[in-house]
This record gives sequence, structure tokens and C-alpha cells, in this order.
Amino acid sequence: MSAGSETRAAGELLERARSGDRRALGRLLTFVEHRDARAHGLDDLVHPHATGNAAVIGVTGAPGAGKSTLVGHLVKEIADAGQQPAVLAVDPSSPLSGGAILGDRIRMDGVAEGRAFIRSMATRGHAGGLALAVPGALRLFEACGFGPLVVETVGVGQVEVDVTRTADTTVVMVAPGMGDAVQANKSGLLEVADVLVVNKADRPGADDVRRDLEHMLDLGHITGVTEHWRPEIIMTTATTGEGALKVHQAIQAHRAHLAETGGLEDRRRSRIRQEVADRMTRRLEDAVTACLASEPEELAEALQGTRTPASAAAALMERLVR
Amino acid sequence: MSAGSETRAAGELLERARSGDRRALGRLLTFVEHRDARAHGLDDLVHPHATGNAAVIGVTGAPGAGKSTLVGHLVKEIADAGQQPAVLAVDPSSPLSGGAILGDRIRMDGVAEGRAFIRSMATRGHAGGLALAVPGALRLFEACGFGPLVVETVGVGQVEVDVTRTADTTVVMVAPGMGDAVQANKSGLLEVADVLVVNKADRPGADDVRRDLEHMLDLGHITGVTEHWRPEIIMTTATTGEGALKVHQAIQAHRAHLAETGGLEDRRRSRIRQEVADRMTRRLEDAVTACLASEPEELAEALQGTRTPASAAAALMERLVR
Repeated sequence: MSAGSETRAAGELLERARSGDRRALGRLLTFVEHRDARAHGLDDLVHPHATGNAAVIGVTGAPGAGKSTLVGHLVKEIADAGQQPAVLAVDPSSPLSGGAILGDRIRMDGVAEGRAFIRSMATRGHAGGLALAVPGALRLFEACGFGPLVVETVGVGQVEVDVTRTADTTVVMVAPGMGDAVQANKSGLLEVADVLVVNKADRPGADDVRRDLEHMLDLGHITGVTEHWRPEIIMTTATTGEGALKVHQAIQAHRAHLAETGGLEDRRRSRIRQEVADRMTRRLEDAVTACLASEPEELAEALQGTRTPASAAAALMERLVR
Repeated sequence: MSAGSETRAAGELLERARSGDRRALGRLLTFVEHRDARAHGLDDLVHPHATGNAAVIGVTGAPGAGKSTLVGHLVKEIADAGQQPAVLAVDPSSPLSGGAILGDRIRMDGVAEGRAFIRSMATRGHAGGLALAVPGALRLFEACGFGPLVVETVGVGQVEVDVTRTADTTVVMVAPGMGDAVQANKSGLLEVADVLVVNKADRPGADDVRRDLEHMLDLGHITGVTEHWRPEIIMTTATTGEGALKVHQAIQAHRAHLAETGGLEDRRRSRIRQEVADRMTRRLEDAVTACLASEPEELAEALQGTRTPASAAAALMERLVR
């Protein structure tokens, strides 16, 4: 297919997706996820329809904290309030899209009863792949009339912190047992929390977790409060949906606070800035790969041990960068 | 301090470290970890003493699998065999070096009774930071006469896969419960395994884990066997040291196999190639940051929404790269 006809095909799919065809939207998301050639033209087509004003909610926490179940109830609350939520469940460690987290998707769908669009996305290996696919998918959702947009991540690593950093409101979930609060704090997740959720509130130890979190807040260990915001701590039981409404209300309260303080525009701008940086970095990585694939002399010298890797890298950079 | 006197200071520390002063080695490792200015000159000083021939052993697996405890027994076996092992315990999610994993370090030290040099290293945030610090630290160990070099990582994310990818022999540990084998397989860790360890062999379910792993091997799910190597599965009880000798023997067998097939030289070369690439990428990331900090017009247009982030990134790249 030529580039022109690819763009035309993407344009037709986009029109269908914008008029409510979920299969068409699903196909377009696959292009974005796989960074298919067809996704390039798509970005220009989507751009006029995506204002970047849809609320972006990040939900994160350790595996097993109950994120998917809570997100299911959260999107139900959002839909009940008359909005059209979309969920992007990203799993940077999963080799296949839809595989491991398909179960979660179905679980969420069950609760939201088709009133939300839910999509799993997995870009194995390169965190950079996810960094590019997520903003593209969110724009696509927005162009199709969805909002708020919920980004659910798995795990407590750097990828999670990066993905949630670009959300307007980040919900961090912990649960009793396994030192979750400590683990989340260690990995820097608590620093990006705008709303804190202690799930499995019916289990022993839940109150201890709450107390630990209050204590960390008091000590200023949760320092991501750039707009003088102290994260609310909400107790939930995701399996029954208990507390989901409160979580929704806390998210709305945080968004209202951001809107008042100008934080909303700050976050929108930092999201775009981050995407430009990520796209540049990705291209630069490709340039490095191409450079080394040409087996330059400096690399050969490093391999022979006649120069240090650092010196080879410095010399090759001279050639590559203006 | 001038660059010249910094290099002199590093040179003096290196001399002391090479003659057995562990405090001097510790200080140099801190320079490397923090990418202190003094680490730059250090690399040139270390290079003549580091042949890149010391065996590099990666040990990885989910938190709680018992890695640190097994590594303690493993270094004891190595020391008993008359070698001088060094351990680098890296934790990409930990904010502070020595903090969270200090306990592990002490536990290992207890078993190895001072016959190994053990160091925790944590570079919070940027995985790229670790990618540069690890090879520098390994060269430093080698220049001071240590070998084999054990790199222990925490977690089952991409950072772990990246770090262990550069080892000669990678040991992947799983334990019964928590779906560890499945989790490790999902994250791609099993693909890089040269030796598989099922720890907590005395617990219920350990045999099931072994059977699962055998099954995955039979199905070819563990595909990192580039040199036609089927990873041995070893049952251990790290708390008592049971099985540690077998793990050491399996590592030696794998190394002998690599030496026979030319895989050892391949891995040494790919390690250097990866380091050159990582160093180039790091410098390019700095170039991107500097470029965006200058608030170029293309970025302003993306922020205003008059051009897509992708188009802004493409235009800025034109300026940056030859």
C-alpha cells in the first residue's frame, strides 16, 4: 500500500471510529500500539479533533493491589455521571497485548457494562515504545469523544512513574500486606500521588497502612504536592465497589484545584513537552543504532580494547551531532 | 579542584584500592555510582588494568525469591574454590544506595565472612544511570583483582533484563507461590536464563515450579539458548545454603560451554557494544534536554497546538543531528 492510500485507509477508519464504531477504534489503536506506518498519517488526522483538554487520570500501584477492579467501578461512577470514560491499561512487562491482562479487561467490562471503552496495551521491552504509544492512544480516544481518560499501569517501576507523571491526577493504590506502602514510597510512586487509595479495606492491617501513609504525608515524604495539595487517603474494597464513588469525587476535587491554580495548563504543557522529548530521544536511539551498525572504527577500537567505551562514544558523538 | 588534580586524587585512590584498600575501592565506586566528575579520569586509569576477561554472573528474579541469601552462599563457594568474588547488588527503584538493601549486604557478608567484596548500588530514576555505572564498577572490580563478578538485580522489569543481558552467565531465580515462574516468563527473564534456580525447595509447590519450568523449556519458551544450551534447573534452599555448590558448578559448566563455542568472546563484545551505545544515548538525551530548555519555536507551536508533537520532534531533530 502506498503512503497516500495508507493515510486514506486510516482516515476512513478514523471517521468510522468517530461515529461510534468500536472495531474501527480498536484497529487504529493497534496501529498506534505497533507504531505501524499507518499510525504516522493518523497523528495528523487526529490532531484537529484532539484538544488535549480531556481529563487524564493515572491509576497505579503494585500488582495485586486491585487496580483493575477499582478502575472498573471508577469508570462506572464516571459513566453514571454522564461522561464517556476510556481506559488504557498499560503493561510494560507483558510480551503480548491483551494476553495477560485480558482477564482484567473482561472483569472491568463486566462492571462498566459496556459504558466504557477499555483497551490493554503492552509494548514489551522498550519503555520508550510505551512512552510514544500512550499519548497517541489518548489523543485518539479524545478525538472519538471519550473523556475522562484513565491510564492504568502495572507495577511500581520507573515506567509507571513516567506514565503517571503525565496524568492530570494520579491515583496511587496500596493494599495491606507485602509492605506495599513502603515499596511504593521507595520507588517514588507516593511522590506523584494526588489521591491515595488503601484497597482491601476489609482486611487486617488496612488501618495500619492508612496510618503509615498519614505519617509519610505529615513528614513531607510525599512531596509531589507542587500545587500545595495534600492527597486525600481513601479506603476502598474494590471487590464490592465500596469507596469508588469517593475516589471519583477526590479525583474531581483535585482537578478543580488544578483548574483554579493553573496547574491544569501546566500539566497539559508538560505532557506535550515530554512527548516531544520522548519522540526526539527515540529518533536519536535509532540514529545510534544505525551509527553502530555501520561498524565504525571507533567501535572496533573499543572492542579491541585500544580505547575505552567512553572515549569511543565521545568520538562517535562528534560525528553524529551538529 | 582542577580536572588534573581530580585525576591525580582518583589515581592515588586506585593505587590504594589495587593494593587491597577496601575503603579506597568503596570511595571510587561512589564516584562511579554518582557519575562524579572524578569518575571520568578514572575510566582511563582503570582501563589498562581491566582486560574484560573476568567472568560476569548475573543473578536475578522477583523480590523475595531469596537472591541475596543465595548470592551469599554462592560467593562462599567461589571463595572456597580460591577465587576473589565481588558482588554488585543493583536496585534501580531504590532512592538511596545502601539503604533498603543494606540488610541484604550484611546478610551476604555474614555468610561469605569477608572473603568477597559486596557493594549495593542504586541509581534512582534513570535506568540509563545504572546502565553506565554497572560496567564502570565491574571494570573497577576487575582492575583490583576481583573475579568472578556477580551482578545481582532486584525485580523482573526491563532494567533487570538489560543488566543481565550483558552477563556471561545469567542465573534466574524463582520460588514457589505468587506465580513467579509465569511472571518471570512474561517479563522475558526466562529467555535470558542460562541457569534456572528454584529456591525455597523445601516449600510446598517447589516441585510444581520445577515442572512448569521443564515444560516451558520443552516447549521452547525459554529461547535465549543462542549457543544450543538448555538451562539446568537447580533446586536450592538459600537459607541453609543447600544447592549453592550445584549452582556454582552449573555456572562453571555454562562458562566452559561458552568458551568452547566462542560465546564468551561474543558476550564480551556485545557488552562493550552495549556500553558504547548506552553512553551515546545518554549524551544524546542531554542534547535533547538542552535543546528543549532553549524553548525553540517548534516546541512553542506544539504547546499552542498549531503543530503535532511528532512534527515538532522531527523538525528539532533536523537541527540537532547531522
